[in-house]
Parts: sequence; C-alpha cells; structure tokens
Amino acid sequence: MKRYDGYLIDLDGTMYLGNERIDAAAEFVAALHKKNIPYMFLTNNSSKTQSQISEKLNKMEIISTPDHVFTSSMATAKYIKHNKENAKCYMIGEKGLADALEKEGLIVTEENCDYVVIGIDRDVNYEKLATACLAIRNGAEFISTNGDIAIPTERGLVPGNGAITSAITVSTGIEPTFVGKPETIIMDEAMNTLGLDKEKILMVGDNYNTDILAGINTGVDTLMVFTGVTPYEDYPKLKHKPTYFVHNLKDWIHNIK
Amino acid sequence: MKRYDGYLIDLDGTMYLGNERIDAAAEFVAALHKKNIPYMFLTNNSSKTQSQISEKLNKMEIISTPDHVFTSSMATAKYIKHNKENAKCYMIGEKGLADALEKEGLIVTEENCDYVVIGIDRDVNYEKLATACLAIRNGAEFISTNGDIAIPTERGLVPGNGAITSAITVSTGIEPTFVGKPETIIMDEAMNTLGLDKEKILMVGDNYNTDILAGINTGVDTLMVFTGVTPYEDYPKLKHKPTYFVHNLKDWIHNIK
Repeated sequence: MKRYDGYLIDLDGTMYLGNERIDAAAEFVAALHKKNIPYMFLTNNSSKTQSQISEKLNKMEIISTPDHVFTSSMATAKYIKHNKENAKCYMIGEKGLADALEKEGLIVTEENCDYVVIGIDRDVNYEKLATACLAIRNGAEFISTNGDIAIPTERGLVPGNGAITSAITVSTGIEPTFVGKPETIIMDEAMNTLGLDKEKILMVGDNYNTDILAGINTGVDTLMVFTGVTPYEDYPKLKHKPTYFVHNLKDWIHNIK
Repeated sequence: MKRYDGYLIDLDGTMYLGNERIDAAAEFVAALHKKNIPYMFLTNNSSKTQSQISEKLNKMEIISTPDHVFTSSMATAKYIKHNKENAKCYMIGEKGLADALEKEGLIVTEENCDYVVIGIDRDVNYEKLATACLAIRNGAEFISTNGDIAIPTERGLVPGNGAITSAITVSTGIEPTFVGKPETIIMDEAMNTLGLDKEKILMVGDNYNTDILAGINTGVDTLMVFTGVTPYEDYPKLKHKPTYFVHNLKDWIHNIK
C-alpha cells in the first residue's frame, strides 16, 4: 500500500452526521495526528469560518486547529487573489465568505466590481440578487463557492448555494465558475495551502458526486467511505471507481504509516 | 380578410414602451372600441392589479377599464380554481398575485398547501424560498406565473420571475407549471373569460417568443407588430410565422370590421 504524505478529508458524512460524531473517523484523525501526517478538512460549506468549524470538531473531540480547516469560501478568496490582487468583489454570503475575502485582501464593495461572488446567504433578498445580476451584466466575473442544491435542516431540505446561484445564472444567461467539490479549484487551492504535490495526497469522503469526483477530476487518489451520502449499494454502478474504499475509517488506520 | 370577434393584445412593446405610449396602438384600440369589438390586454406582469394597469393605460389615453386587463396572476388563480376550489396556496408574489388569488376564493397560507404559486416579488428572501421548497417537497403543486428571466429598469436588467422560480426548481428538482405567455394556460383562461372560441380571436403582440408563440401554441391566429422586442430583421428567420404582421398597428385598423 502506497504511503500518503497528506490527507484531504470531507466533513459531513465522513467525520460526523449532522451533530453526531462518527467514532471511527475520530480514531482515524487521531492516528494521522499521532504519525504527524498533515491533514486538512475540505468542506463546501461557505458560511462558517475556520475557527467555527474547528470549534465544532473539538467539541466532538476530533483533533483540529483552525488551520486544519479549508472551506469553499477560502478556496474562492485564494483563487480570486491568484487572478487579481486587491480585486473588488460584490458578495452574497455569510461570515465565512466575508472573512475569507477580507483575509486575502480583497475589497468587498457594490461598485465597479471585478467579481461577483456567491455563497450561501440565509439573508439573501431580491436587492442582493439584482445587484449581482447588474454587476455581471456590466462585466464582473461570476464565481460561486459551490453548487450544492439543498441543505439538510430540522425542517427538511432548504435551498443551498446552487439554488441561489441559479437565480443569477438564469437571469443573466451567464454560467458561474464553481469553486467547491467536485470542481478542481478547491482541490488545487487546498493542495497549494498544504504544500504537497497531488500524487502524495489522498482525498477522503463519503459523497461520490462531490468528494470522490473532486479527487478524480484533479487526479488525486481517493478513499471512499460508506458512512454518509453514497451507499455501498451504489459502488458497483460507479463508472470511475475511487482508488480505495472502506466501510468505516477505522479500517484504514493500518495504512497510515 | 377574416373578421375577428375578439382581440387579445400584449402591453409592453405593443401598446407602450416603458412609460411612452405607442400612438398607432392607441388609435388601433380606439378603432376596436368604436366598432364594439371585445378586447383584452394580456400581460405576463404578475405584480400589478387590473385597476393599476388600467389606470396606467388611461393616463396614456388608451381606452380601457379594469375588465380589459388580464394578467398572468389572474390566469394562475383561475387555473388553480378550475383544478381545486378553495385550494390552499403558499404564495411568493406582490399585490397583483395576492389580489387575484383572493378574488378566486383561494386561501393563502403557509401550512398544508395544495399549491406553491410564484410571481415576481421584489421582497423575496431566503425564508420565502425555503418555505416554497419545503412545501413542494411535501407534495404541493408548483405553479409559476411566468418564466420571464429579466425586467428592464432604469438601473438595467434585474431578475424576473423566471429567475426566482429557478432557485426553487434547482433546489427541489421539480419543474413548475408555467402559466404566462408563451404557455397556453394564460391564453385558455383569457379566452374563457372573453367567452369566445379560439378561431374568432386574434392575438396581437411584439415579442415573438412570448406573444406570438402563445398564439401559435394555442392555435389562435396572430398579428405581429414590430414596435417592441422582436425586430423586423428577425422575421425571415422565424420557422413558424405569425398569421399576419404590420409595422405598426395603425396599418391594421382597416381590417377591423
């Protein structure tokens, strides 16, 4: 079995289910920590900051610092900065996105924007959508943190960022650049932050259509786990298989060297 | 030339451009009025009431009463009533839609909805979108007044009802029933209200993709006018031609018998 020098690990369905820790996953992370193997949690969540997510993990006794967390908002901000330093951005989004843009030195404004950046925003309204459409029609580049269509809540499935984004896509006729999994931008920015080449990294996740495809699309080896969205029954039907699979992450620990 | 017993007439681009009256169109309507030919203005606008629209026409000295106006909201309310009397509806929309639903005896509520009805709403927000998605996922039928993607304003093109609707379509994976032009529901409900059979009616409009296709899709003869959206240059490229065309509606007056 190949040794991996770094791990990118999904959160929901891989480390926990909603607010419930997956014990095998906590043991897996403890094993990485013990062997000093670098790891980062890679999430399409654009609303939370690194600290907020790390705090949630620590409450579940999953070993993490804020630097172990890499969100679609962070990837978006880094991607924009790599394309244009100090870019002016009109943003629809929550604290996670606002903080990420600020941290990369981007300027959040409504006027003469270079970019329109969309993340999940539970305070989105018509005026925000109109401002975004007008800026895109005026030539701003259209970026969306992720295409997730729905978010599970206690009330049921409510609109995800992909749904908000589509209102702007339909109105302007312009498709956004998506950053989050299964796209490659979040993977590239995460690997760049981790400072490791892609052949040294293993991408771990439960959702075939986001986590595993993100790895496959980027040329990174993948480890699929059946504790979340994609059931084991779907495995035989998958055209492009993950590099490895385990039923739970405890079964992988002996491969951490 | 065939005599038509009733006329369905588009508004924006046909009777006026924004707030500017098209004089030839006003003369055309005066001629219909003089010959006692029934006519109704057929608009995808879902936000305004009959009275509001009639008032705008009267200010421009275009002859109309509120009963001469038929909106996509009215068609939506009548369509729902024909399917289920006293249906419970969750509504995203403005006064035109609220009044139309009430007038048909439909019950606007958030709970146990039979229908989710979407019209343009300049106060739309995340909570309204979430409530709509939850109701549709719980089995409510999904109806949208119209699919218009953008609305011209002084600021530029801002999101239309089709854009708001798409956020819900994308999140739920369920396509709505659209009511407005070029769909047939608004035509059927308007003809029913006018009390005339389709072979007796002429549909008049400037927008090929909404007005003229609505007529073609319903099997109603069409008169295209080049005072609005679709330019004369596009005419040769049209696969299904309108029954007639004129450059402005004054040229049609001699056919009103």
